[in-house]
Amino acid sequence: MTDLLWPGDHRAGHTFSDAAYLAAMVRVETAWLSVLVAAGIAPGSARADLTAAVSEADLEAVAVAAEATGNPVIGVLDLLRGRTGGEPARWLHRGLTSQDVIDTALMLCLRDALERVRDELTSQVRTVAALTETYRDSPMLARTLTQPAAPTTLGMKFANWLAGLLDGADTLATLPALPVQAGGAAGTLAAATELTGSPTEALTLSGRLATALGLADRPPWHTSRSVVTRAGDTLVTCCDAWAHIANDVAASSRPEIGELAEGRGGGSSTMPHKNNPVLSILIRRTALVAPSLAATLHVASAHSIDERSDGGWHAEWTALRTLSRYTVSAAGQTTELLAGLVVDAERAAANLATAGGLLEEQRMMAELTGRGARRDYTGVVGPLIDAVLRRAHRLLDAT
Amino acid sequence: MTDLLWPGDHRAGHTFSDAAYLAAMVRVETAWLSVLVAAGIAPGSARADLTAAVSEADLEAVAVAAEATGNPVIGVLDLLRGRTGGEPARWLHRGLTSQDVIDTALMLCLRDALERVRDELTSQVRTVAALTETYRDSPMLARTLTQPAAPTTLGMKFANWLAGLLDGADTLATLPALPVQAGGAAGTLAAATELTGSPTEALTLSGRLATALGLADRPPWHTSRSVVTRAGDTLVTCCDAWAHIANDVAASSRPEIGELAEGRGGGSSTMPHKNNPVLSILIRRTALVAPSLAATLHVASAHSIDERSDGGWHAEWTALRTLSRYTVSAAGQTTELLAGLVVDAERAAANLATAGGLLEEQRMMAELTGRGARRDYTGVVGPLIDAVLRRAHRLLDAT
Amino acid sequence: MTDLLWPGDHRAGHTFSDAAYLAAMVRVETAWLSVLVAAGIAPGSARADLTAAVSEADLEAVAVAAEATGNPVIGVLDLLRGRTGGEPARWLHRGLTSQDVIDTALMLCLRDALERVRDELTSQVRTVAALTETYRDSPMLARTLTQPAAPTTLGMKFANWLAGLLDGADTLATLPALPVQAGGAAGTLAAATELTGSPTEALTLSGRLATALGLADRPPWHTSRSVVTRAGDTLVTCCDAWAHIANDVAASSRPEIGELAEGRGGGSSTMPHKNNPVLSILIRRTALVAPSLAATLHVASAHSIDERSDGGWHAEWTALRTLSRYTVSAAGQTTELLAGLVVDAERAAANLATAGGLLEEQRMMAELTGRGARRDYTGVVGPLIDAVLRRAHRLLDAT
Amino acid sequence: MTDLLWPGDHRAGHTFSDAAYLAAMVRVETAWLSVLVAAGIAPGSARADLTAAVSEADLEAVAVAAEATGNPVIGVLDLLRGRTGGEPARWLHRGLTSQDVIDTALMLCLRDALERVRDELTSQVRTVAALTETYRDSPMLARTLTQPAAPTTLGMKFANWLAGLLDGADTLATLPALPVQAGGAAGTLAAATELTGSPTEALTLSGRLATALGLADRPPWHTSRSVVTRAGDTLVTCCDAWAHIANDVAASSRPEIGELAEGRGGGSSTMPHKNNPVLSILIRRTALVAPSLAATLHVASAHSIDERSDGGWHAEWTALRTLSRYTVSAAGQTTELLAGLVVDAERAAANLATAGGLLEEQRMMAELTGRGARRDYTGVVGPLIDAVLRRAHRLLDAT
Repeated sequence: MTDLLWPGDHRAGHTFSDAAYLAAMVRVETAWLSVLVAAGIAPGSARADLTAAVSEADLEAVAVAAEATGNPVIGVLDLLRGRTGGEPARWLHRGLTSQDVIDTALMLCLRDALERVRDELTSQVRTVAALTETYRDSPMLARTLTQPAAPTTLGMKFANWLAGLLDGADTLATLPALPVQAGGAAGTLAAATELTGSPTEALTLSGRLATALGLADRPPWHTSRSVVTRAGDTLVTCCDAWAHIANDVAASSRPEIGELAEGRGGGSSTMPHKNNPVLSILIRRTALVAPSLAATLHVASAHSIDERSDGGWHAEWTALRTLSRYTVSAAGQTTELLAGLVVDAERAAANLATAGGLLEEQRMMAELTGRGARRDYTGVVGPLIDAVLRRAHRLLDAT
Repeated sequence: MTDLLWPGDHRAGHTFSDAAYLAAMVRVETAWLSVLVAAGIAPGSARADLTAAVSEADLEAVAVAAEATGNPVIGVLDLLRGRTGGEPARWLHRGLTSQDVIDTALMLCLRDALERVRDELTSQVRTVAALTETYRDSPMLARTLTQPAAPTTLGMKFANWLAGLLDGADTLATLPALPVQAGGAAGTLAAATELTGSPTEALTLSGRLATALGLADRPPWHTSRSVVTRAGDTLVTCCDAWAHIANDVAASSRPEIGELAEGRGGGSSTMPHKNNPVLSILIRRTALVAPSLAATLHVASAHSIDERSDGGWHAEWTALRTLSRYTVSAAGQTTELLAGLVVDAERAAANLATAGGLLEEQRMMAELTGRGARRDYTGVVGPLIDAVLRRAHRLLDAT
Repeated sequence: MTDLLWPGDHRAGHTFSDAAYLAAMVRVETAWLSVLVAAGIAPGSARADLTAAVSEADLEAVAVAAEATGNPVIGVLDLLRGRTGGEPARWLHRGLTSQDVIDTALMLCLRDALERVRDELTSQVRTVAALTETYRDSPMLARTLTQPAAPTTLGMKFANWLAGLLDGADTLATLPALPVQAGGAAGTLAAATELTGSPTEALTLSGRLATALGLADRPPWHTSRSVVTRAGDTLVTCCDAWAHIANDVAASSRPEIGELAEGRGGGSSTMPHKNNPVLSILIRRTALVAPSLAATLHVASAHSIDERSDGGWHAEWTALRTLSRYTVSAAGQTTELLAGLVVDAERAAANLATAGGLLEEQRMMAELTGRGARRDYTGVVGPLIDAVLRRAHRLLDAT
Repeated sequence: MTDLLWPGDHRAGHTFSDAAYLAAMVRVETAWLSVLVAAGIAPGSARADLTAAVSEADLEAVAVAAEATGNPVIGVLDLLRGRTGGEPARWLHRGLTSQDVIDTALMLCLRDALERVRDELTSQVRTVAALTETYRDSPMLARTLTQPAAPTTLGMKFANWLAGLLDGADTLATLPALPVQAGGAAGTLAAATELTGSPTEALTLSGRLATALGLADRPPWHTSRSVVTRAGDTLVTCCDAWAHIANDVAASSRPEIGELAEGRGGGSSTMPHKNNPVLSILIRRTALVAPSLAATLHVASAHSIDERSDGGWHAEWTALRTLSRYTVSAAGQTTELLAGLVVDAERAAANLATAGGLLEEQRMMAELTGRGARRDYTGVVGPLIDAVLRRAHRLLDAT
């Protein structure tokens, strides 16, 4: 699964693909069977690894069948029951409802995406920390509102990128652990209580399922969707940070400026001389699209109603999937962009030297103090760089 | 190609699928070869039907290759050149640039989507016009801000739905004809001019390509993207109209109200008694998602810069595709919903009879006029219905 | 009324301000009183010009009172009844409902905004047509994906801007005439029918109101909101076109490029040498924000339900107002930007001369044709410019 | 300042109003003067409380002047210098840049908004915790996808609302402390270093300013805007939770269902019998609009470039302000809605009793276990309620 119209989509690989999602649903049903057996509700013969019972070849049929009930669970259950039979078929899904399976499978796929983003961020932090060190004192022109503003250093620019990456990583770190969903038909675990014979026992089933899948336990969140929206907001926050880098690279790679370039630019179908900042362009593209996807998750959440929402819930699924895949792809593109970044420090210094009028502010300050002007006018660039690098090393040390 | 997490996606079939898009790109290159030959630029032996030279089996490789240049054209050209050879390979794509192929292929796929939407709208107008006639005088309760307001008729409600559908069809009808894109590297047709030997001749190539593909001719619109945004806005306008219907059906199908129901409701994975308004829910879902996709097209358009945009252009492609597919699917779902709609006129009349206080407004009016109150209090429902039906019949007669 | 945090907001003046909206509501009520008198329903003594009965001093109280009923109409009616008394007070608003007043007043304010946008577009088209003529043959570098691509002319760039402006004007011209809203409590004109004594008579009231206010007549559109969404989509389409211009100016005004600049750039609070492209920046800002506002109108429209929506309707009002004011301000900023645009044709020519590798494509084409290369490589720039100028003159001649 | 077209806006009072923002800017400049004096840079006579030097009467002029430079700071400085004179005028703003003042003032206004939201959430948690206790065992019908699903209790529904509110409060609690902005022209504190004579000294100025204003110290974040986006995401998360409640109330208040109602519903301009769920409608409206505003903040953040952004930064200001005010208003509306909520437990029980087929799932479960069916079928409602109440009491105890 990859998308012809989203260059770079292959980087997301199987993350949150249809196949991965189908497998995640089956994994949830398999785990639940084990839970029923372990809790003494279903007989040992009901335990079955259903993983191999479905495959990518089933995707089309399950997808088509999904419209009749509004979600793909019943189609999967029909397949699983037909292919396993016996006690597993008899006990399959007992005590769950469709939403439990859909939501828990979403969490499994989302976890995969978040982990990949976290890994890429760590790698990026390492690369940009090194760039910051290397170019700590390389003079460059700070520009504000597109115009020459004052002297700074390339290292300071990289430190600002680094701060954005660290903010992304921090936001990711504050996300609550992704939870299991196991509420049954109305979020009351009524069927599970009937099966176990007691509320106390029923309550443990959710915890057992969480443990089996490595997710957090949590009371049913059928219509409290901040779990989803917070993840989406975090993914966009990362895309924002990458776009900041991509914007700087794209603008700097204009030959008239020429301070930064991609290591391996893209060619043209008709102009052999072109060296386009393709990764930057694709990252920027992602950042233009991502906020709308996260907003869709909020719109969906805001439609929570009754004990299962009538459209809001369904609007989440592809928005979360698309946002996850786009973010994972952009993460990889940014890592590659940074690893191959070409820095022309001489050009940066030359552009600074050419810019006029920059030291007028310094002259005014010297006039105020009555002291002579300092030798350079880059202020506290050194300590600011050190502060950001310390943040970076705390993250890297903790990894 | 279908989407497990977007139940109903199969209704869009091949519309704007990856395979359809690949075929559209090849169709553009094939047509251009013919144009070059017809204009006497390339030899007759350069004409080739490239359609069979690529297939769905190539999608993955082309998609992966697309990242290196930021779009899939070069990958397709490499395949086509390798598989055809000779004069076709030599003349392939000469005079075009990637954006010409991408944009023209987008228009071909978009045209398919718009035609399907138009057809579904026509079908819906026919169905709802009939419903309006049938229930013209059936009493029902008008509700405002969720509360009982005044008497109306089921026919009037259906006429309001119909007005929305007709507005959608009108919006679609005002869209400018979808244009070809043929500007060459910088939108100046420089290569084509070199090939033809004269600007006058070069200009005709764009027109010939348009004719070959059934698109409109137009000066290059590389960075003037209202063609795309207006199509997107129109698709959303249709989704809005369908959501209006779906909202009414979903609310009315609550058993406590019980006036409308879907003909074939959806079941549950654990509750056999359920009869969920699944189509309504899926249509509402679409309408929650669609505005963001159209907004993305505007954000992309607003990033137009230089003679080819650095990210804004790339952000359009999947937004337009997804919006097209979602709209086509929702169109079909709405047609089915309307065709199977179950109307409980007795329940509607009973709900009206139960509602209290409705005629207080009438009493005040009668007091003002000093005349006795009229027999019913449904005002001009008849003439309003007739006015909307006349609009509907104008559309149907023109089809 | 102006907005400290939206520099340039004062350009919108009273367009859609709170004061203008209050006046528009009162104008609707005044016109309706006249209609009731003219139709022989109310006595001649009920006619009153209510305009002077309220003022900006009432805004705060009306706004606060609006929460109790969810809209400001009852608050305005209370004021008007208290201040006029007699027959006007007795007949005020009879036959209307709040939504009639809110929606019709929205249309009056929207009309003002659309007219201002239309006027600014005309002025811009005139200016850019002149720029296009002036710089028709001035050589410049076409850039794609930020990188040097091929030769073009400044006139061609301006013609591309012009095409965007003309697309905006075309979109505006296809908008249906803005309609009056007069449906009464449930969109059935029941109260009006009671007052007139006949549906036929009642129907004429809506037409009379439309005539009085210079709006179009139309059956009630309480829950069919494409009137609003299409206006919003059109406003954004214009913002997109202006952003294209602003993006080019902002990038070109970087001193390293230096081809375009604003006539009167903005200063800095601490850097006296700065000459920031402030108008471009503010126009870009608008274009970042506008798509979301138009999307909100669609989200609102998609929430149409019953005979008056339960939140969707209310979500429209400030989105439409804000989008209107922002667009009007950006319209004026763009007119000023264009009027003062500084073009450095020598710098443009020099940048073109410096760029390397541009004629590689031409060399390949010459090789294909076997003819020598043409003198220049700007293709059909002349005819393309002429085509756009013809479109511009058609618009200007029609004004 | 209040908004005629956003009923309930007066609840936000001065929070983030133009007047409040002007006062915040002046407060920043005043604090900076003190910092300069305290650090021994400026003479004691430069200290001045500038608060009274400007007033609401200046808003219009400052707003109009803001366009020339793209932000209101220079206009404010001109006023302050003209009105104070002497040493304060001489030292005013020295070492700062416009962005420092704009951003720090944004944080002061945002803090006010966040505090009000936090207070309202606490109050809501207290109210809903009480509702949950009171109706812990009151039987009601759980509905999924609009249709009857299974038995639950009113207390369980309220516990689900409570979980959403607690999620909102948790999200708010994980926000990093709002920081001061003090970077000078290029984010390097160059002017401050010149004034203090040493980088080490200059660095302390930012900390002193933070202390003076009760904000956190942080390296300059001119182009790393997660501070803003995370706040926006949090505000939307709260709106989502309130919309969940409002959706349930609006649907339940349909007389055909009649389980919940607003204590003081809204009237109609023409229908005296109406009792509209106005607060619910206005809260829903907010939730339809809020996601787009937060998305605008991300779009803006993703446009970070150079050392001050060319439009992205400017797009933040009104989006953050509007989102803040809308959220504060919705917070108050929700508090009032909950405090006055009318619960008809008998009607809820009756609706449950009327619903058919609910116990089919239980029958299947009993069949599976071979035991008789349990007395009721509300599963673990009791323990789930207790778990949510424990979370609520942890929050309330910590307040």
